[in-house]
Amino acid sequence: MTTLQASAQNQLRQLIEQIERLEEEKKNLGGDIRDKFAEAKALGFDVKVLRQVIRLRKKSKVELQEEELILATYMHALGMIDSLPRTASTDTMMDAAE
Amino acid sequence: MTTLQASAQNQLRQLIEQIERLEEEKKNLGGDIRDKFAEAKALGFDVKVLRQVIRLRKKSKVELQEEELILATYMHALGMIDSLPRTASTDTMMDAAE
Amino acid sequence: MTTLQASAQNQLRQLIEQIERLEEEKKNLGGDIRDKFAEAKALGFDVKVLRQVIRLRKKSKVELQEEELILATYMHALGMIDSLPRTASTDTMMDAAE
Amino acid sequence: MTTLQASAQNQLRQLIEQIERLEEEKKNLGGDIRDKFAEAKALGFDVKVLRQVIRLRKKSKVELQEEELILATYMHALGMIDSLPRTASTDTMMDAAE
Repeated sequence: MTTLQASAQNQLRQLIEQIERLEEEKKNLGGDIRDKFAEAKALGFDVKVLRQVIRLRKKSKVELQEEELILATYMHALGMIDSLPRTASTDTMMDAAE
Repeated sequence: MTTLQASAQNQLRQLIEQIERLEEEKKNLGGDIRDKFAEAKALGFDVKVLRQVIRLRKKSKVELQEEELILATYMHALGMIDSLPRTASTDTMMDAAE
Repeated sequence: MTTLQASAQNQLRQLIEQIERLEEEKKNLGGDIRDKFAEAKALGFDVKVLRQVIRLRKKSKVELQEEELILATYMHALGMIDSLPRTASTDTMMDAAE
Repeated sequence: MTTLQASAQNQLRQLIEQIERLEEEKKNLGGDIRDKFAEAKALGFDVKVLRQVIRLRKKSKVELQEEELILATYMHALGMIDSLPRTASTDTMMDAAE
């Protein structure tokens, strides 16, 4: 039938309350993160670039250089930047790769 | 090397322009959908419920009734609704299931 | 110039490390929530309906009943359900509203 | 009462069918875009960088250079890159700005 047994009812209630607590904490952390970005903005930092930096910090230096090189190649092919290579570090990497 | 060949350059440019065109169309459709909801709201319809209806219309009647029955069971177990069963159609289904 | 002063450099580093820490915690909570839903599923609960229950628990009983009534009205108008009213509790509310 | 008048019922049905049609088209475009990226990948392009290029193409050259400069400044302050300036074009811009 459609009425849950007392034990299942307790499980359900506990699970839901635990999930609600976790979601509340997660929401609060989301608020804390927004506050930090607001603080950064108030100090004069560029929030969009900060987000980009945080994303890039998850990658290794080698990954970063490789992506940068591919990006420069594509942007050059599309006429978005004038000259190749874009970066000294890219240069070095290309020499090393020869 | 880092300079793409002319053929790859053309492929790249074509792919990017095609994707940009598709994304532009997708964005416009997003705007059209928002306009429709705004029109619905102006006519007095409840937009949140409309979204729910559209989600529910993707399900079959049987799926709908099953979900409704589970939902009522859980809500009852949590004291969110007073009585069971919630719906006449659920009744019928339950009879049929006996 | 483009080199940040030592104080700005420290601020930047601190902000980024704080944000990264908060994002890490947020990500972990996301994992904990997924684990809870997996646990619920293993116990035989319907995860999709659980999510719905959690969403509905944020609303008051009156809000719930009002939305339910509008939903039933729209679903009836579209031929998605056969009869009105759908619920006993809705009945009561409608009597009260007369 | 909770039964919609025939005219409202027609409006509701029309709106919902129009929205469903628009959402269907939007979903199809999403599929077309995914196909294009798959095609690009099959041709040997780096999909992640392609997405980045598409995002960057929405900006003007000046915006791009400014963001690049701020990014390099932050990355340098955090020890993510060794030297400044990163790019020849950034150099030029900085000279021009003097």
